[in-house]
Amino acid sequence: MGFQEIIYGATKSAEVLIEILESYQEQKLNALVTKLQIEKAGRLMKAFPNALFDRDSGIFMLKPQEQNLRKGEVAIISAGTSDIFIVNEIYYTLAYLGFDAERINDVGVAGVHRLLKKVDALKKFKVLIVVAGFEGALPTVVGGLLQQPIIAVPTSIGYGVAEGGNAALNTMLSSCANGIMVVNIDNGYGAAMGAYRILKQVRE
Amino acid sequence: MGFQEIIYGATKSAEVLIEILESYQEQKLNALVTKLQIEKAGRLMKAFPNALFDRDSGIFMLKPQEQNLRKGEVAIISAGTSDIFIVNEIYYTLAYLGFDAERINDVGVAGVHRLLKKVDALKKFKVLIVVAGFEGALPTVVGGLLQQPIIAVPTSIGYGVAEGGNAALNTMLSSCANGIMVVNIDNGYGAAMGAYRILKQVRE
Amino acid sequence: MGFQEIIYGATKSAEVLIEILESYQEQKLNALVTKLQIEKAGRLMKAFPNALFDRDSGIFMLKPQEQNLRKGEVAIISAGTSDIFIVNEIYYTLAYLGFDAERINDVGVAGVHRLLKKVDALKKFKVLIVVAGFEGALPTVVGGLLQQPIIAVPTSIGYGVAEGGNAALNTMLSSCANGIMVVNIDNGYGAAMGAYRILKQVRE
Amino acid sequence: MGFQEIIYGATKSAEVLIEILESYQEQKLNALVTKLQIEKAGRLMKAFPNALFDRDSGIFMLKPQEQNLRKGEVAIISAGTSDIFIVNEIYYTLAYLGFDAERINDVGVAGVHRLLKKVDALKKFKVLIVVAGFEGALPTVVGGLLQQPIIAVPTSIGYGVAEGGNAALNTMLSSCANGIMVVNIDNGYGAAMGAYRILKQVRE
Amino acid sequence: MGFQEIIYGATKSAEVLIEILESYQEQKLNALVTKLQIEKAGRLMKAFPNALFDRDSGIFMLKPQEQNLRKGEVAIISAGTSDIFIVNEIYYTLAYLGFDAERINDVGVAGVHRLLKKVDALKKFKVLIVVAGFEGALPTVVGGLLQQPIIAVPTSIGYGVAEGGNAALNTMLSSCANGIMVVNIDNGYGAAMGAYRILKQVRE
Amino acid sequence: MGFQEIIYGATKSAEVLIEILESYQEQKLNALVTKLQIEKAGRLMKAFPNALFDRDSGIFMLKPQEQNLRKGEVAIISAGTSDIFIVNEIYYTLAYLGFDAERINDVGVAGVHRLLKKVDALKKFKVLIVVAGFEGALPTVVGGLLQQPIIAVPTSIGYGVAEGGNAALNTMLSSCANGIMVVNIDNGYGAAMGAYRILKQVRE
Amino acid sequence: MGFQEIIYGATKSAEVLIEILESYQEQKLNALVTKLQIEKAGRLMKAFPNALFDRDSGIFMLKPQEQNLRKGEVAIISAGTSDIFIVNEIYYTLAYLGFDAERINDVGVAGVHRLLKKVDALKKFKVLIVVAGFEGALPTVVGGLLQQPIIAVPTSIGYGVAEGGNAALNTMLSSCANGIMVVNIDNGYGAAMGAYRILKQVRE
Amino acid sequence: MGFQEIIYGATKSAEVLIEILESYQEQKLNALVTKLQIEKAGRLMKAFPNALFDRDSGIFMLKPQEQNLRKGEVAIISAGTSDIFIVNEIYYTLAYLGFDAERINDVGVAGVHRLLKKVDALKKFKVLIVVAGFEGALPTVVGGLLQQPIIAVPTSIGYGVAEGGNAALNTMLSSCANGIMVVNIDNGYGAAMGAYRILKQVRE
Repeated sequence: MGFQEIIYGATKSAEVLIEILESYQEQKLNALVTKLQIEKAGRLMKAFPNALFDRDSGIFMLKPQEQNLRKGEVAIISAGTSDIFIVNEIYYTLAYLGFDAERINDVGVAGVHRLLKKVDALKKFKVLIVVAGFEGALPTVVGGLLQQPIIAVPTSIGYGVAEGGNAALNTMLSSCANGIMVVNIDNGYGAAMGAYRILKQVRE
Repeated sequence: MGFQEIIYGATKSAEVLIEILESYQEQKLNALVTKLQIEKAGRLMKAFPNALFDRDSGIFMLKPQEQNLRKGEVAIISAGTSDIFIVNEIYYTLAYLGFDAERINDVGVAGVHRLLKKVDALKKFKVLIVVAGFEGALPTVVGGLLQQPIIAVPTSIGYGVAEGGNAALNTMLSSCANGIMVVNIDNGYGAAMGAYRILKQVRE
Repeated sequence: MGFQEIIYGATKSAEVLIEILESYQEQKLNALVTKLQIEKAGRLMKAFPNALFDRDSGIFMLKPQEQNLRKGEVAIISAGTSDIFIVNEIYYTLAYLGFDAERINDVGVAGVHRLLKKVDALKKFKVLIVVAGFEGALPTVVGGLLQQPIIAVPTSIGYGVAEGGNAALNTMLSSCANGIMVVNIDNGYGAAMGAYRILKQVRE
Repeated sequence: MGFQEIIYGATKSAEVLIEILESYQEQKLNALVTKLQIEKAGRLMKAFPNALFDRDSGIFMLKPQEQNLRKGEVAIISAGTSDIFIVNEIYYTLAYLGFDAERINDVGVAGVHRLLKKVDALKKFKVLIVVAGFEGALPTVVGGLLQQPIIAVPTSIGYGVAEGGNAALNTMLSSCANGIMVVNIDNGYGAAMGAYRILKQVRE
Repeated sequence: MGFQEIIYGATKSAEVLIEILESYQEQKLNALVTKLQIEKAGRLMKAFPNALFDRDSGIFMLKPQEQNLRKGEVAIISAGTSDIFIVNEIYYTLAYLGFDAERINDVGVAGVHRLLKKVDALKKFKVLIVVAGFEGALPTVVGGLLQQPIIAVPTSIGYGVAEGGNAALNTMLSSCANGIMVVNIDNGYGAAMGAYRILKQVRE
Repeated sequence: MGFQEIIYGATKSAEVLIEILESYQEQKLNALVTKLQIEKAGRLMKAFPNALFDRDSGIFMLKPQEQNLRKGEVAIISAGTSDIFIVNEIYYTLAYLGFDAERINDVGVAGVHRLLKKVDALKKFKVLIVVAGFEGALPTVVGGLLQQPIIAVPTSIGYGVAEGGNAALNTMLSSCANGIMVVNIDNGYGAAMGAYRILKQVRE
Repeated sequence: MGFQEIIYGATKSAEVLIEILESYQEQKLNALVTKLQIEKAGRLMKAFPNALFDRDSGIFMLKPQEQNLRKGEVAIISAGTSDIFIVNEIYYTLAYLGFDAERINDVGVAGVHRLLKKVDALKKFKVLIVVAGFEGALPTVVGGLLQQPIIAVPTSIGYGVAEGGNAALNTMLSSCANGIMVVNIDNGYGAAMGAYRILKQVRE
Repeated sequence: MGFQEIIYGATKSAEVLIEILESYQEQKLNALVTKLQIEKAGRLMKAFPNALFDRDSGIFMLKPQEQNLRKGEVAIISAGTSDIFIVNEIYYTLAYLGFDAERINDVGVAGVHRLLKKVDALKKFKVLIVVAGFEGALPTVVGGLLQQPIIAVPTSIGYGVAEGGNAALNTMLSSCANGIMVVNIDNGYGAAMGAYRILKQVRE
């Protein structure tokens, strides 16, 4: 396809990753590695000192994209700091694809008034990505208040019946709000790519 | 214990149930049968023509309780008519125990504004019982808005990952709202008994 | 929200549904009922003889929409006739919302050549909805060949480990194709609504 | 709501937690952190030397509450020392909320005589919180002997089919005792909050 | 082995079963069929009018054993009438093997005092079989009070998380009482055979 | 009960365990600790230098029992060295209770001839305990060849669908051999106690 | 591919099936329908009176293949009559493909001696298909005795933990015998096709 | 059987393994150890310096087989470098058995064109082993394009719903391609043995 390449970093060794990235560099291409562990990131940063590594999300970008990004198209909504590892995976994947997403980290279902105050500001975005762990109810409430495409991302944050993210995933899939679309647990990168597919249609 | 007797009807034959109920009648006691199937209910109503049977919930009460019930102590909150089989199981169990609960059937998470309008009216109740199937997010939102004891009842209504009620159950157990207490899927009777245990403390 | 109302038919009685639909009719509104069982549909068709009922999907539409529908915006892709109950739920929900989707029913993963022949024809659609039961691999292959937004719908068709649709659901969620978005098992209506949210952005 | 703030510590970094706690301290507010790992606790105790940290439960309290606590309102019942990590989470959360709960650690289902001897002493409490891992049967026996509100807390202690706490959770949810209310596995804090909601009603 | 033959009836047609039973009859052997559906039982009773069929359990015995059975060796303990389909499967299988078991149907965990009154009477039996559905806690309490071999039989009676019997099964497997032995859900016949293996050792 | 005390070691700290064991020592009682981790065992061995610790199983016995044990009553059958951690837990628990069990470690289902050669030697034991991980089929084959009470112990050894021991557990519970009795995954101690309950009946 | 067409009958209507079969008939092709329900089979047999329908398995073959089938290449091994619905699905699918398989229905794991007597006779077959429900241990024992390719087919026959066939499936997948290959629960047709793929290699 | 011995290394100590291997060496036999952890491998390599250890797969071979291996009989197909730990387990097990398999590591479902280019080259192999994690769809596509025996190996690589490999396993079992045969998650050794059973028939 025409999509830029993205590399799943969790199960590849540092040697293999460096080899792959060098071949990209030679072709003057950018590259994105996801879910990279900190120990391996250290070795990659030594090999590519101009690259970007985000500790929270494990995102590694060969050539950081920070200029000329399109603003105001995607909002990433979450309830708090526990889900930042996925919020940032989405944020940097979108940056890699050319978008400067807005992160809104302080709205939760149990305090619905804070969310209500943001509804007007949220209306301007073309795609909303909603991230939640534990019971995962946030996309349902957002979906009842706003009409844009909503991509829901369950996270593995939680314990007991919420451990691993299945409770959040099932909540999002069985949401009583209309037309919520869901990606795999902790799949921030997939949510960004889903948004990118939509945004390509919007612009064309 | 001092609690009145309650009989699980689903797995007992009509003959066995009639025998049990006759012994209660002889002792001039009331009795409540839960989850009674319609076919068996027909035979019981012939044997005890003054009894009450609610088709929606399968509740059968030997001596209907309709007078001198205490009002204003319990509200039963649900999103719509699909969960009425549990809402009514709670309602009639509470009637059997001496309470006239208020049923509020039209508030859902995807339309949070309707719920917000009811918040003040809901503040006067001593216990809130919240019933929900599918993704089961309603108790979380209610719990974020109100401070009373909240008993959450997941129902088996739903399909796909929500089939059987586990998605709703897990949502309620992992709720990010503080102090939600949960009973088994479709256990309306248990929720009513939980409320009754609380109300006994409140009054004493 | 501004969305048209849609009613979940599976757990409501014919009486309750007729009552709801009469109130819509009085307000001169259209209405859509999903997952309606055939027995109940017979009673509804007597009450509303101009309505549409599709036996395959259980969709009931108060005022059939067949004219002035927008063509060429959505394709619904599936492998065969076993999944038609969901393909049609999507088709009629989109018709209700103003779109004439194209149904492509004969492409499967095990015969990938048939799919390859359709790739060019599929490029013109703005949204692709891909329906699959059993192992659910079709959205992955489609997602590797085409760049539009892809909404994947797992169905409950299958047996053994595929019974109930979880195998297809998990395949779609863990797809190695980029940016596939997923809805609940058998949730054709949700897929149509997701597409509708996207199409509203595309046009605006 | 009017509830005091409580912070989930397990997934936040020490830096983030210290920042949050400093803002509480500046506002002269107390704060409670739950499920804090020992390594992070060391750093927090350095930053806030007057705070309390309980190693067993991972509870961290900014301003320890030890005086003027209300006694005799809540009993926390468990079978032995294995569940102390949750017993203490409940105990310190209740202390934070103003209550001095009584811990009863040596009653188990397999030795029912020990429990029977405590029944009279337990009758005076307004709320009973029962903690159990493995098969989780203790709340059922307590619920059959006593009439107060009972909040059951399954713990993750166990192995084989009991690993992770689901066996205990399901036992509590399907208890044949009347009106047991359940919280998530290892959610001692949620049990304390549920008790607090009840106690607020009892006193008002 | 030297064990008498036992036939699983649920998945065999009446024709096949009659054929098998005729060959036993010709060899002047007795035979036991388990989990026989009522419709098929009618045809078998016509073919073998002196046989025994128990409607509650679906047990069919070619030559009813009612005389010279050994008394006082096995007690079958359960909480109520809902589990009688398994209690009777055990009872008739033991009769087939030469034992007259005692059925004790009215002891439950939620009313532990009734059980305590029976402890002395239960001490005389050589094997205790304990049957329970829902949360399945009865074997644990019995096992804490008595020292004989205890075979625990979970039943499929229950709903919500207890549906199908897994909650009861897991409770019994993770029991905190010492040395409880468990058979499959609804496997009354297996429990009887387990007891028979023990009784053969006791007598030899 | 009259059973000797046994202490679950996995979740108790070394301090707590030493305290408990000292109180036993003062009362001149023996004590058994199960599933003790090696690090904690080191500290216990320092405190009680005459005690026994078995590294394979994590069994710790305050006063090793090695004399006057009853031989020839229990055989512990397993397929190989992978399950020795449970074989030894059973062996030492039985030693603690006064029995010298025989360990037979080299018979497996995939090599059924080796098992057949041992059938005659196995006939003399009063109770057979069969230990197996992976697919857990060994108790079925043993149960088809021998008539004594058989206690089946699934172990957590295995990977893929066998990881954690559920595959072995379910195989044992649904065995087509008659009257197999099962304990929890890795519950060697429970199997020994089940055998002890049987042996007490055999002797009396 | 070059494979003959096979039609999954369970979810297609009789009308759709007749239409498909007529098109095959016109092209003078044979066709096989699997898992056809009896009611629908009646209608198909009227439309195609020379076809074959096997009630046990639900197999429908347009032009029965009974002559010139290759004998002695495949054996289908099972424990008894309960699994005949899958044994026959395999048998007729192989007939459709040109093979006359041998059905061996009376060997089980719990009576291993009967199987041992057949080992020599089984050595001549090129592929062994082993069918089992409940605990599914038969392929392991067969695989330990014989060296040919073994295709294991779990069936849904069983109850309790064996209900639906997952226990048998997991046993087969985690078999300690070397190189057992497994197909989906109740997928007799898939096993036949797997054997066919092997036999094509053997002959070429 | 006549198969060469293979030893499961994961749960045996280095001491036990060395002892077993020495006895093989004395008998001048080769031996293969699977799933050996790196720490233990170091000790084994010291004891047997001429042995082979593959770090990726954990395969240890006493006498490396590298000459006179049969080429062109088996292809091992996978999507990328993440599954190499299983690809190599298959490769070295086949080498041990006398075959030099070809590894094809760069074909995936999401880029189906790369696979199509290899179809002709793949036609010459007698057995195809297809390895995949995440959604596990590769065997389905391969099975639709090629007619040889296909052994599908799910791997544990993936996250969210794909964690542990069950999503890939279920996809392979419910594949809509004809006659795919499946082994346990991560069971590369079993796949090699299955291929070996087939190849023995092909040659004879």
